[in-house]
Amino acid sequence: MDISRTDCVARDAADPLAPLRDSFDLPAGIIYLDGNSLGARPKAALARAADVIAREWGTDLITSWNTAGWFDMPKRLGGKLAPLIGALPGEVAVTDTTSVNLFKALAGAVAMQAADPCRTTIVTERSNFPTDIYMAEGLAGWLRRGHTVRLVDSPEDIPAALGPDTAVLLLTHVNYRTGHMHDMAALTALAHEHGALTVWDLAHSAGAVPVDLHGANADFAVGCTYKYLNGGPGAPAFIWVPERHQGAFMQPLSGWWGHATPFAMAPSFAPCAGIGRALCGTQPVVSLALVECGLDVFAQTDMAALRAKSLALTDLFIALVEERCAGHPLGLVTPRDHARRGSHVSFTHPHGYAVMQALIARGVVGDYREPHIMRFGFTPVYTSFAEVWDAVEILKHILDDNAYDVNAARGTVT
Amino acid sequence: MDISRTDCVARDAADPLAPLRDSFDLPAGIIYLDGNSLGARPKAALARAADVIAREWGTDLITSWNTAGWFDMPKRLGGKLAPLIGALPGEVAVTDTTSVNLFKALAGAVAMQAADPCRTTIVTERSNFPTDIYMAEGLAGWLRRGHTVRLVDSPEDIPAALGPDTAVLLLTHVNYRTGHMHDMAALTALAHEHGALTVWDLAHSAGAVPVDLHGANADFAVGCTYKYLNGGPGAPAFIWVPERHQGAFMQPLSGWWGHATPFAMAPSFAPCAGIGRALCGTQPVVSLALVECGLDVFAQTDMAALRAKSLALTDLFIALVEERCAGHPLGLVTPRDHARRGSHVSFTHPHGYAVMQALIARGVVGDYREPHIMRFGFTPVYTSFAEVWDAVEILKHILDDNAYDVNAARGTVT
Repeated sequence: MDISRTDCVARDAADPLAPLRDSFDLPAGIIYLDGNSLGARPKAALARAADVIAREWGTDLITSWNTAGWFDMPKRLGGKLAPLIGALPGEVAVTDTTSVNLFKALAGAVAMQAADPCRTTIVTERSNFPTDIYMAEGLAGWLRRGHTVRLVDSPEDIPAALGPDTAVLLLTHVNYRTGHMHDMAALTALAHEHGALTVWDLAHSAGAVPVDLHGANADFAVGCTYKYLNGGPGAPAFIWVPERHQGAFMQPLSGWWGHATPFAMAPSFAPCAGIGRALCGTQPVVSLALVECGLDVFAQTDMAALRAKSLALTDLFIALVEERCAGHPLGLVTPRDHARRGSHVSFTHPHGYAVMQALIARGVVGDYREPHIMRFGFTPVYTSFAEVWDAVEILKHILDDNAYDVNAARGTVT
Repeated sequence: MDISRTDCVARDAADPLAPLRDSFDLPAGIIYLDGNSLGARPKAALARAADVIAREWGTDLITSWNTAGWFDMPKRLGGKLAPLIGALPGEVAVTDTTSVNLFKALAGAVAMQAADPCRTTIVTERSNFPTDIYMAEGLAGWLRRGHTVRLVDSPEDIPAALGPDTAVLLLTHVNYRTGHMHDMAALTALAHEHGALTVWDLAHSAGAVPVDLHGANADFAVGCTYKYLNGGPGAPAFIWVPERHQGAFMQPLSGWWGHATPFAMAPSFAPCAGIGRALCGTQPVVSLALVECGLDVFAQTDMAALRAKSLALTDLFIALVEERCAGHPLGLVTPRDHARRGSHVSFTHPHGYAVMQALIARGVVGDYREPHIMRFGFTPVYTSFAEVWDAVEILKHILDDNAYDVNAARGTVT
């Protein structure tokens, strides 16, 4: 390989997606490779928030529940998000948190398995994002019908963990640390062969890689909007229930927003038809409204184009790190295989935390995950090829010069 | 009684709380008597949102989880809210929705009763806000250990409904329709005599009436911030777990924000100490931040002063309606007894829906609740005595002139 910065600049000039960066307000002097944790701010968000707060809330007040469409926003935004994940518009709701939505999806899946009392195991990975495991534990512990969570140690161990006792296979599509991407269709088919249902967490997939939930015949999915979808810090998450499961889908967080007639004030719960039954309580309107600013950027392109750029960015990063930082104890964690790679790249380094702090101090913002993992997110809607070059050069200088503090104090990270 | 508009204007001039209205941006030409549904916008909210979006999110990006205190915000805002409800700072978290928090509180209470397998009944009122009943049904149905929800028809029936099978007495402190306020201390004592725990919904109490959770020896409470606390549409709700119950409090929505070491990424849930174990997933930062703008207004006064004004406003409204609208078929639903009255007043009218639409068309914004109930909220931080006078005059003219459309189409209302 013999790539120069000039080559990277040329690739940016030829990149049909490059203009999308103008939709975002990125701080000067920063190479932001952490969009897999918190997406950058769409420029439209500030004006949208001002309109929601000053006009919809301040002036129109209570009438905005109807006139500004606040009440329908979870379903309307779900409809906009749906094509990014291979879902139909009436199958997605933007609401609550990923953790809460996972609880609903898992509970709904477990309930659909109730006819077979032997199906009491929720299978997931030990390396799954912890809150997914915790929510599964919470549900299993509260059911107290012998439900347990079985953790497998690697993707290769999943097939052997499935059996007649499996109720649900719960997987995060793209692993938050390694960037490993599961074969959703193959694992769903395998789960179905064993009579199990699947729940997919798309936190690191939605807006990052093409997802085809219907093509994979998946059963349920959840995900977040504040990473690659750029919906804002802690923005409401989403839940997907396909039409074929909606009639049978029941979940215990049966709040009034999921009621068939929420304003009749009936003293007993009756779920509405469709994805609405995945809703629970009143949603945080301002944060919810900002999700649309992120989704509107995606309406200008498609996931195939974004995927091509994402792979080009991560290929370039891997190649440059291995070439220009050769000799340093860096270990590639993320699969080289395109079919198994998400949109972030992780390298281990014995002083990964310290090196990441040095990178951040020099304006290259990635993040750190235990153990020893430096994580770099590549967001095809705003990351440029020249930024990849510059980030690697800064990494190279830090490593060549030992310009990091091995005693760097640990802060909290998210 | 012989009160004139001039008297009302004089009362406003003498009202020490009157200056608080300047903290709010209320639309011109509107008498807003619906702060019990959606509180008005604090002026500070617009600048606060701009700062969170432009600087904390846009510029500081991921670092704001620490530097801007995003991660600690649920507990920090809980500490600000605590004195309004007779709680200690480390006992309240602002998070999720009222419905979701109610699920946590109910589940936690039921779990604390698990040693007595006969305690399987959740007692509440048929007239409770429906989502509270629905969430109790959802929990009971999922426990499948014989748990049921028992609905009582009136406050007087509560004592007889309690017994050795009662796990939890779940009540909304101030009824959303009638404005009736329960005696929290007496009913909590009664529940405790029967070995039951109490869960109080403070949706229509927090910021509206003095609440003394510790004085009442209550067990758990939840509430919302978007009504009298003026936190913004759908702003995150709150949950209170007193210190004496925190060690035993376990709830099934065991997400990573409630973990003892959330960033250690441990593959098994271990609850943190304190109120943090009531947290679940990542919170909607922009909506959450705006809650503080509402709470900051309350820091300028105290609930005793607000209560005195609230009662003066509701007394005045009741007296003026009964005097000036005499002869019209209006029925006072709200208790006259100060000890049993919240901060809104409800009147029935055979054409309540139509009359309310006519009021709204003339700038008096209250709302309608089935059946036949016109509901008027009095928010002591911004409602004036002259507004009460003017609202009644407009109501009088509508009724005197039959100036309402009995066939008015029903929209959705919240």
